[in-house]
Amino acid sequence: MLNDETIVAIATANGIGSISIIRVSGKDALPIALKLSKKTDLKPRLATLSSIYNSNDEVIDEALLIYFKNPFSFTGEDIVEFQCHGGIAISNIIMSEVIKLGARVAQPGEFSKRAFLNGKIDLTKAEAIAKIIEARSEDAVKLLAKQLKGELTNFVNDIREDLLFMLAYTEVNIDYAEEDLPSDIYEQIENKLNKIKTKLSDTLEASKRREGLIEGFKVAIVGKPNVGKSSLLNKLLNFDRAIISDIAGTTRDTIEESVKVGTHIIKIVDTAGIRDASDVIEKIGIEKSIEAVNEADIVIALFDNSKTCDNEDEKILTLLEENSHKEIIKVLNKSDLDNEFDKSKLEDEFIELSTKETINPLVYKLESLLDSNTHSDDMTLISKRQVDSVEQTLYHINESTMPLTTGELEFFAYHIKEALEHISNITRPYENDQMLDVMFGAFCLGK
Amino acid sequence: MLNDETIVAIATANGIGSISIIRVSGKDALPIALKLSKKTDLKPRLATLSSIYNSNDEVIDEALLIYFKNPFSFTGEDIVEFQCHGGIAISNIIMSEVIKLGARVAQPGEFSKRAFLNGKIDLTKAEAIAKIIEARSEDAVKLLAKQLKGELTNFVNDIREDLLFMLAYTEVNIDYAEEDLPSDIYEQIENKLNKIKTKLSDTLEASKRREGLIEGFKVAIVGKPNVGKSSLLNKLLNFDRAIISDIAGTTRDTIEESVKVGTHIIKIVDTAGIRDASDVIEKIGIEKSIEAVNEADIVIALFDNSKTCDNEDEKILTLLEENSHKEIIKVLNKSDLDNEFDKSKLEDEFIELSTKETINPLVYKLESLLDSNTHSDDMTLISKRQVDSVEQTLYHINESTMPLTTGELEFFAYHIKEALEHISNITRPYENDQMLDVMFGAFCLGK
Repeated sequence: MLNDETIVAIATANGIGSISIIRVSGKDALPIALKLSKKTDLKPRLATLSSIYNSNDEVIDEALLIYFKNPFSFTGEDIVEFQCHGGIAISNIIMSEVIKLGARVAQPGEFSKRAFLNGKIDLTKAEAIAKIIEARSEDAVKLLAKQLKGELTNFVNDIREDLLFMLAYTEVNIDYAEEDLPSDIYEQIENKLNKIKTKLSDTLEASKRREGLIEGFKVAIVGKPNVGKSSLLNKLLNFDRAIISDIAGTTRDTIEESVKVGTHIIKIVDTAGIRDASDVIEKIGIEKSIEAVNEADIVIALFDNSKTCDNEDEKILTLLEENSHKEIIKVLNKSDLDNEFDKSKLEDEFIELSTKETINPLVYKLESLLDSNTHSDDMTLISKRQVDSVEQTLYHINESTMPLTTGELEFFAYHIKEALEHISNITRPYENDQMLDVMFGAFCLGK
Repeated sequence: MLNDETIVAIATANGIGSISIIRVSGKDALPIALKLSKKTDLKPRLATLSSIYNSNDEVIDEALLIYFKNPFSFTGEDIVEFQCHGGIAISNIIMSEVIKLGARVAQPGEFSKRAFLNGKIDLTKAEAIAKIIEARSEDAVKLLAKQLKGELTNFVNDIREDLLFMLAYTEVNIDYAEEDLPSDIYEQIENKLNKIKTKLSDTLEASKRREGLIEGFKVAIVGKPNVGKSSLLNKLLNFDRAIISDIAGTTRDTIEESVKVGTHIIKIVDTAGIRDASDVIEKIGIEKSIEAVNEADIVIALFDNSKTCDNEDEKILTLLEENSHKEIIKVLNKSDLDNEFDKSKLEDEFIELSTKETINPLVYKLESLLDSNTHSDDMTLISKRQVDSVEQTLYHINESTMPLTTGELEFFAYHIKEALEHISNITRPYENDQMLDVMFGAFCLGK
């Protein structure tokens, strides 16, 4: 599947920095590096300072060269890294000299794809590498670092082992007699099945809860017109804005939507167009609120302390009840104005926000809620692809229970085989080139 | 002068890339790296893959570590480079872990300043490093790479040697008798003085011509109202815009002003506000034209073929005569319309641009002009600081000629000493802390 081509890309971010790295991978990586540096050899892994010459024999930079001999490199092929002076011109010039010597520009994700095809990383690690670049909080980085260290790979391998054990038993049982098997074999299998079920459903649940960890938790702000949604949105967006703005590479749109809350990132879902409506004539209706709540992980519902609880408030309360599986924060707004709102309608816990004070009580509540959701040691899946595979695996595990009880071992074996295939897909789907192209194509350049 | 503090900075550009480098320099660099990687040792210059742990013993990334043992490092101190996964979050987390272990964030240019103070680089190399990052053309990179390789250092040292020779002779001559000296010593000294003069003035001239090489050559467009300045500006700005826009890290303003012409960058001087004036009612007057020409390296003067040469054209022609030391391109615009303009007024060479054709003739002319100005092997200075020092050196060399002829050796010695100090300042001004602070403070972070 691999071709003979040597690829090259700038591996560092584009812009003004003091160092850039140009990475060359493939069989010509070393000859190209020797040609450009006029060296006769490069010792593997040893950082070597050298002048870099262009095709006219002019020095174009002084760079550190590091040669990673195959298979001990990221891609499993020969790799040479040029650590040159930063800036756009030098990197581009060295790139073009490397290309003159026979390499071609790498496609997005091509280094990782080669690493995968050469067995250096499995798909869980490839996905962690792709996501870790975009991570914006320490929690996200730690989660991804775990996957990079092989947490999900080990999780998958443990389940595979158990499933293979069951399959082996069933095959023996179908083909031969039952006498030589341990007497408690049914119990053993049932135990294993139950443990796998728990593992898988815990993982799905934890992953669901932590879905926003990498790209930001989605927060909807709902409430009837004039309850103060637009004003709250503005206060949230301005909260800690300085820190968010520090993050280069985020687009203006993302900055406008994202707020850092403690160590977390939240994104305001604005299906309703709160942003467009001024505080005085908010246009958000209940239909828009339903849309926003559907998209959100966390719902902030606003009620106006200075007005009686009316039909529109009731509709919001019903919406909250229907979505009680989501995280909900009820806020009694304008708490310093007339006490007209029937607080009993809010039942249990709610937060009061005054028109004169900061929104700190809400921010603290959000933070503790996010903390409790994210600080978990449960295995966490980081992509839809992984979630789909686990769901499919769980489906077939569930389906296998009945035939096991009734002794329909062919059906049992069928479902275990299906489960095995789905769980294996997480780390290494052998026969799906198209999926690989799509997955690695979404990587950033030079990765 | 150096303190004991260990410094840390992100050395790669800020943004989305597949690799980032965090660089730590100082006596704690190695202990900090060992702590974060849980290794017992790092072999100098050997790239070593390791997990990186935070202070809670959680893995935060897998990174390549490279240890440069003092004095064999950029700063001359112990340096450890962390090559971690790209993105903003990881770099910041590793930075903060390094800081927890006692390092502090480096000031802009602090790595280079330490390299200078430890005698690893002289000022010419430090300046080349600072400028190479911002270089935008291959010519600029090659020029800076030469300085990085020590071209200017060698130039300075050669002159220093000659001056020291003269000084030694003079001291001997003042203190002792003349008998033991070679008979042709005057000739020798005069020869050396003349050679130095030529070297210095050639260098100043070449540097002047190539001033725009790094930051872009300044081009002024002048001509009377309605001659087509605004239209030409727009065509120039759109010429090769795609390539310019590719350069990340350039601000929008810079993009709007800069055009790539062949391998060069030109910047349109817009003292006159051509940009603000529409093509129909250009407001540029002769005063504005004078300002623009004063700032420019190259002047493009437009004349309208469809109108007679009037008073305003004459003023422009006078302005060009007064600035004949600059590069001037005369353009007869609207060449496909009525031939009303007296071409003899343009004397020698001019370019015709038709309203229907592209501006390619002008672009080619600009390119060949820039090529001939920049493709030179003459020593080139890259900063005002260097130019000032060479000018001062040349001044004292010139002043030394007369006292040598008249035998006033004390005066001769005084000027040679001054020349020596000024030329030495280029590489290593020993007693000027404030100048160093200003110079290194202008560096980018992590440098």
